[in-house]
Amino acid sequence: MENTENCPKVGIVMGSDSDMPVMAKAADILEELGIPYEMTVISAHREPDVFFEYAKSAEEKGFKVIIAGAGMAAHLPGMCAAIFPMPVIGIPMHTTSLGGRDSLYSIVQMPSGIPVATVAINGGANAGLLAAKILATSDTELLGKLKAYSTKLKEQVEAKDAKLQEIGYKAYLEGMKK
Amino acid sequence: MENTENCPKVGIVMGSDSDMPVMAKAADILEELGIPYEMTVISAHREPDVFFEYAKSAEEKGFKVIIAGAGMAAHLPGMCAAIFPMPVIGIPMHTTSLGGRDSLYSIVQMPSGIPVATVAINGGANAGLLAAKILATSDTELLGKLKAYSTKLKEQVEAKDAKLQEIGYKAYLEGMKK
Amino acid sequence: MENTENCPKVGIVMGSDSDMPVMAKAADILEELGIPYEMTVISAHREPDVFFEYAKSAEEKGFKVIIAGAGMAAHLPGMCAAIFPMPVIGIPMHTTSLGGRDSLYSIVQMPSGIPVATVAINGGANAGLLAAKILATSDTELLGKLKAYSTKLKEQVEAKDAKLQEIGYKAYLEGMKK
Amino acid sequence: MENTENCPKVGIVMGSDSDMPVMAKAADILEELGIPYEMTVISAHREPDVFFEYAKSAEEKGFKVIIAGAGMAAHLPGMCAAIFPMPVIGIPMHTTSLGGRDSLYSIVQMPSGIPVATVAINGGANAGLLAAKILATSDTELLGKLKAYSTKLKEQVEAKDAKLQEIGYKAYLEGMKK
Amino acid sequence: MENTENCPKVGIVMGSDSDMPVMAKAADILEELGIPYEMTVISAHREPDVFFEYAKSAEEKGFKVIIAGAGMAAHLPGMCAAIFPMPVIGIPMHTTSLGGRDSLYSIVQMPSGIPVATVAINGGANAGLLAAKILATSDTELLGKLKAYSTKLKEQVEAKDAKLQEIGYKAYLEGMKK
Amino acid sequence: MENTENCPKVGIVMGSDSDMPVMAKAADILEELGIPYEMTVISAHREPDVFFEYAKSAEEKGFKVIIAGAGMAAHLPGMCAAIFPMPVIGIPMHTTSLGGRDSLYSIVQMPSGIPVATVAINGGANAGLLAAKILATSDTELLGKLKAYSTKLKEQVEAKDAKLQEIGYKAYLEGMKK
Amino acid sequence: MENTENCPKVGIVMGSDSDMPVMAKAADILEELGIPYEMTVISAHREPDVFFEYAKSAEEKGFKVIIAGAGMAAHLPGMCAAIFPMPVIGIPMHTTSLGGRDSLYSIVQMPSGIPVATVAINGGANAGLLAAKILATSDTELLGKLKAYSTKLKEQVEAKDAKLQEIGYKAYLEGMKK
Amino acid sequence: MENTENCPKVGIVMGSDSDMPVMAKAADILEELGIPYEMTVISAHREPDVFFEYAKSAEEKGFKVIIAGAGMAAHLPGMCAAIFPMPVIGIPMHTTSLGGRDSLYSIVQMPSGIPVATVAINGGANAGLLAAKILATSDTELLGKLKAYSTKLKEQVEAKDAKLQEIGYKAYLEGMKK
Repeated sequence: MENTENCPKVGIVMGSDSDMPVMAKAADILEELGIPYEMTVISAHREPDVFFEYAKSAEEKGFKVIIAGAGMAAHLPGMCAAIFPMPVIGIPMHTTSLGGRDSLYSIVQMPSGIPVATVAINGGANAGLLAAKILATSDTELLGKLKAYSTKLKEQVEAKDAKLQEIGYKAYLEGMKK
Repeated sequence: MENTENCPKVGIVMGSDSDMPVMAKAADILEELGIPYEMTVISAHREPDVFFEYAKSAEEKGFKVIIAGAGMAAHLPGMCAAIFPMPVIGIPMHTTSLGGRDSLYSIVQMPSGIPVATVAINGGANAGLLAAKILATSDTELLGKLKAYSTKLKEQVEAKDAKLQEIGYKAYLEGMKK
Repeated sequence: MENTENCPKVGIVMGSDSDMPVMAKAADILEELGIPYEMTVISAHREPDVFFEYAKSAEEKGFKVIIAGAGMAAHLPGMCAAIFPMPVIGIPMHTTSLGGRDSLYSIVQMPSGIPVATVAINGGANAGLLAAKILATSDTELLGKLKAYSTKLKEQVEAKDAKLQEIGYKAYLEGMKK
Repeated sequence: MENTENCPKVGIVMGSDSDMPVMAKAADILEELGIPYEMTVISAHREPDVFFEYAKSAEEKGFKVIIAGAGMAAHLPGMCAAIFPMPVIGIPMHTTSLGGRDSLYSIVQMPSGIPVATVAINGGANAGLLAAKILATSDTELLGKLKAYSTKLKEQVEAKDAKLQEIGYKAYLEGMKK
Repeated sequence: MENTENCPKVGIVMGSDSDMPVMAKAADILEELGIPYEMTVISAHREPDVFFEYAKSAEEKGFKVIIAGAGMAAHLPGMCAAIFPMPVIGIPMHTTSLGGRDSLYSIVQMPSGIPVATVAINGGANAGLLAAKILATSDTELLGKLKAYSTKLKEQVEAKDAKLQEIGYKAYLEGMKK
Repeated sequence: MENTENCPKVGIVMGSDSDMPVMAKAADILEELGIPYEMTVISAHREPDVFFEYAKSAEEKGFKVIIAGAGMAAHLPGMCAAIFPMPVIGIPMHTTSLGGRDSLYSIVQMPSGIPVATVAINGGANAGLLAAKILATSDTELLGKLKAYSTKLKEQVEAKDAKLQEIGYKAYLEGMKK
Repeated sequence: MENTENCPKVGIVMGSDSDMPVMAKAADILEELGIPYEMTVISAHREPDVFFEYAKSAEEKGFKVIIAGAGMAAHLPGMCAAIFPMPVIGIPMHTTSLGGRDSLYSIVQMPSGIPVATVAINGGANAGLLAAKILATSDTELLGKLKAYSTKLKEQVEAKDAKLQEIGYKAYLEGMKK
Repeated sequence: MENTENCPKVGIVMGSDSDMPVMAKAADILEELGIPYEMTVISAHREPDVFFEYAKSAEEKGFKVIIAGAGMAAHLPGMCAAIFPMPVIGIPMHTTSLGGRDSLYSIVQMPSGIPVATVAINGGANAGLLAAKILATSDTELLGKLKAYSTKLKEQVEAKDAKLQEIGYKAYLEGMKK
C-alpha cells in the first residue's frame, strides 16, 4: 500500500512538554530529511497505562525507531526499550542541579539485554540524525540525503574558516559580539 | 479477618537476583520486627508485563509499602511509584563503574508528583527500618519494637566504647585485625 | 478526642529561612490534601538545644512524619532521624557550588540503623506527597485523595498532548516562549 | 547476489586488544542471532591512516552498522561517526581511575551533526543487541529472533523468581555463595 | 594545679569503631608529641543523648580541640562544632561507593557560623598534627616539637633521594617490590 | 610589651584580588571580634619569592594563624602550611567550570605531615571564625566573645521562626520576594 | 632563508568558531611575544578529510607546536597528536552541562604513546604561553621575553597589594564593584 | 663544549618515592630515545627550601623541560612552573579515594600565566614522550627517533590485529587469560 510511505516511521515521545525545545530539534531534522514521524507527550510516571499502551502499539503503528527524551530520573527511554523491539534513542535532558548527569546515567546505564542508543545531553538534533541513519541502513535515497547533509555541515565550517582567513580573528570576534 | 494480620504488608522486589545480598538485609529487619512481607524478583525491563501486573495488584494484596532495589539505570523503584499509591522505598545498588551514583540518581531524582523514598547506596537494612517506621505510624506495638531496636543499637556502641576505655586503642586495633 | 484530628501530623522543619521556597511546596501539598502540619525554622547547628527539644517532643505533639530540609552539610534530617522514631523525609537543597550533591550525600548516605527517606534535590512537593502516602497507609480517605491527585496529574499531561496534537510542535513552542 | 547475505553487516572495531573481553560480548550476540560481522583491532591514535581507510571503506564493504569500543579519551567511535554515514554504536570502556566516565563523556557528548549511539560502560552485549535492532528495522526474520531473545531473558528472570519462592531468600543467598 | 598538665586537651571521637584505624593515626601523633588526649566511640546518630552530653561537657573537661571522624552522611564533626566553642577538626572517612566524597561534603560544607577544620579523606595523622599546631599557638615548647617533627619529615625525603641517587631508579623500583 | 596586643595575630592572604569579596568576610569577623590581622595579596605562582619570604617571616611577625584563600589549582594554602609552623586555614574559591571542586581538592587533600584546616567553598566567614576559635584556646576573653557570637546567631534563627509563626509561610514567602 | 623567520611556527586550530573567544587569548599571547602563527577553524568531525590534510601537512608548513581547542567529546587535540609528531597543546572548552569535564577528560586522558599537553578549562592564554615556552627551549631571545612577561605578572600583583595596603579592603571592595 | 651533549636536559621530579613506578615510565622513554635526564625525589611540602633551590637552579643546570609528578593536593608541578621558565609537564597520580581527580585538578587547573602541560592520570610514558617532542622541536635527529617510535606502536597494533584475524576472537580471548 502506498500510504505506508506516509505512515510515521519514527515516534518522538517526551515525558514533559518542558522537553519540547530539545525534542523539536529532532523533529526539525526528520522534517528536513522527509521522514514521517509522530510526536507525543506521554509520561511513564504520571500515566503508566497510557505509556504502556503507546509502547506496545508502536510496532503495529509502523514505527521503526522511537526517540524518547526525559530528564532527572529519566525512565521513559529505558521503559520504551523494555517493550518496543526496535531501536530506542534516548535524549538526556539538561537539569539545573546535576547538569544532566542524572538524566544521562538514568538513560545510558541500561542493564544487559535492553539497550538504549544514547546521545549527548540535550542532543535533540543528533537524535533525529541517528534515527535517520538507522532508517538509511535500508533506504539508499535517505542515505544520499544524509550524505548531502554532511556535506552541508562541512561547507558551513569551511565558510567560517574562509571568513576568518579573510578578516582575521580580531574582526571575527568583534562580529560575534554583535 | 484475622488472616489480614498475616498478609504481607511489605513487598520487597528486586530487578535481578544479584541484588539479593542487599535486599536480604531489608528482609532480615522485617523478620526481626515480625512484619509479614513478600520477596520477589521482577525486572521492569525484562518482563514489563509481569512488572505491571505486580505493581497494579500490590494494593489489593494488602501491601502498605514496597521496597524496590535496582542498580545502574534503576527504573524499578520509580515505576513502582508510578503505579502503587502508597510509599515506595528505593535502594540504589552499588555499581562497579560509577559506585552507585547511576543507581542513586535514577532513583532519587524523581519528577514532581511521584516520590521515591530513597535510602543510601546498598542501604538494605535502612530500607527495612524505614518500611517499619512507616507502618509504625499506625501501630504502637511496632513503634515499641522500633524503640527497642534503637536502644539495642545504642548499647552496641556503648559496649564498644567501654571496651576501648578498658583496653586502649592499640589493643583494640590489634583485636580488629584478627 | 476529636481535636487530634486537627493536631499537626506532619512537622515541616528547615535549617534556614532561605529554604522556605522549597519547603512551602511541601506545605502546599499538605494543605491541598487537608493534612494538618506545623512549619518551623530550627537550625541544628545554630541552636542545637532548641533542635534537640524539637526532635524529642515531636512524637508527643502527635507528629507521625517529619519533613526536614537542609543544604550543604545538611545534618538536620539525619539528626531528626536519630531522635524521632517515625519516618523522617529529607529534602536536599540545591547549592550554588556543588549543585546540591553536598546536601544530597549528607542526607541520603545515612549509616545503618537511622534511615532518612530522601527525595530529589529541591523536591519539596514530593516530600509533601511522600508524607501523605505514609499517612495514607492507615487512612483510606486520604488514600482516595492521593489517587485523585494522581488522576489530576495524568489529565494535565493528556491535556498538553492533546494541545500538541491539535496545534503541532512549532506552534506549541511558540506558545511556550510567551 | 546471494553472497551479500554472508557479507559482514556489522563492523566491530576496538582501539586496543585489552578491550576484547567487552567487545567479544557484542560478537557473541551477533553470532547467536546469525548476523555476519567483522572484528578488527584498529587504533585511531596509533595508526590514523589505517583507521581512516577502514572508516572510508566500511560502507563499500557492506557494513550497515559499526560497533566501536574505546577507553579513556575514547575517540574511535566519534571518528568513525565522522566518516561512516550509517549508525555507529559506541561502547565506553571501564577505566581504573575514572571508572569509565572519561570514556563515556568522550563518546556520548558528540557535537551536533555527528551522533554516536552510546551504550552503558562496558556494555558489549547491549551494543550487539542494538546493532541487531537496527538491522531488524528492515529484516522481519531478525526481528523475530530478537523477540525470541527477549522472551528468553524474561524466562530467565521468572525461573530465578520461581526458585526464590520455592527455597526462600536465605537458601537462595547460600546458593549464590557457592 | 599541676594535674591540668595531664588533663586531656584533645578529644578524639569517632562514630563507629570501624573508623579506628584512621583515628589511631591522630592518637599516634598526639602521643609522639606528648599531648594528653581522650579517645571515645560515640555515635551522634545511634546515641544522640550521649553525644550531646559529650559535646556539652567537653569544654569543662579541659578539651581545647576535638578531632571527630565520621563516614558517609558524616554529622558527628559538624554537630560537635555546633556545641563545642573551640576548634573541631573533621576527618572524612573513605567510603566504598563514593570514595569519601559523601563524608567530605558532609563535613567541609558547613554553613556560615559553624566551621569544621576539615583535613583530607582518611587524614588521621594530619588531624593530629593540626590539633598540635592549634595548641602550639600558645605553647612554645610544643611548637619546638612540631618544628623538629617537620625536620624529621624532611630528612626522610632526603634519605630517599640519596638512595635513589646512589642506586638508580631501576634498583630502587626493584627494592620497592620486595 | 603592650604593643604585641596590637600586632597582627592572623595573616589573611589571597592569590588574586578577585578573591577579596570572600576574604573580606574573614576580615569582617576578625574586626567584629577585635582580633588584629594583616591582609595581603600574594600569588605563590606569580611571585614565588615574595610568597616564600611572606611565609617564612610570618611567625616572626607574630602571626598565630594564616588564612589563605585560592581558586582552581589552589596551591597557596598548602604552600603556606609547608613553611608556617602554626595552623593554616584554607578557603577554596568557587570556580565557574568545576564549582570549586578543583579548589577544594587542591586544598583539603594535603599529604600526611602538612595539614590545611579547610572550610567550605567560599567559606570566608567560617575561616575567620575558625581562626578566632584557635586563638580562643588560650584566650578566655575571646572565647567569651565567640559564645556571645553564637548566641546572636541563635537569636537570629529564633526571630525568623517567630516571624514565621506569626505571619505564616505564605506571607513570609511574599516578604522574601520583596 | 630569512622568510622561515616569518613562517608560522604555531598552528592554532579550533573545531568550531564558538571556541574563538578562548582561542583568541592564545593568539594574543603569541602576538605579544612576536611568534608567527596561523589560526584555522577545522572540524575533525564535520570535515575529517580537511582535518587529516591539515594535520599531515603541519610539519611541512614549519609548525613546531599545534594548539587545538575543542569542547564536549573533544577529539581534535588528540587526533592532531596522532598525526603531528611535535607537541600538541589541548584546550578543553567549558560546557554548559558538564562544566568542561567532558572536554577535559576527552583531551587529557590520552592513551600511552600519544600525549596531549593539556591546560586548564578555557585556558587560552596558558596554551599560548606553553607554546612559547616550548619554542623557548631553543630560542634564548624568546626565553628572555617570557621572563619579562613573568616579571610583568609579578608587578601586577604587587601593584594590587600596594593599593590594598594603601586604601584597605573595604575601599578596595567598593572599587571592585564599580 | 661537547659535554653539554651529556648534561641532563630533562629533570624528573616526584614528591614521594611512592610515585616512582609511574615516573620510571617517563625515564624509560627518555632512555630509549637517548635523552639525558636527572631523576630526583623532592617534596615541595616537606622540604620547601630544597624544592625552591631545585627549581631555581634548573635552568642553569641545563634543563629544558621538567617532568613533575604528584598526587592528591599536587602542588609540585605548579610550583615548578612558577619558578622554571621553560615547559613543566605534570603527571597526576592515581589516588585511592578520588581516583586521581584531586591530583588532576590540582595540576591542570593552573591560573592564567603559569601553564603546566598536563598528561593523563598515571601517564608516565606520555610525559616522557611529550618531553621528547618538546626537545624535538629543535632536534631533527630526535624527531626522527620519535617517528620511528610511532611506527613501532603502529606495528604493534597491526600485529595484534593480524593475530586476531588468524585465530579469531575466541582463541584470542583464551590466550589473554593465560
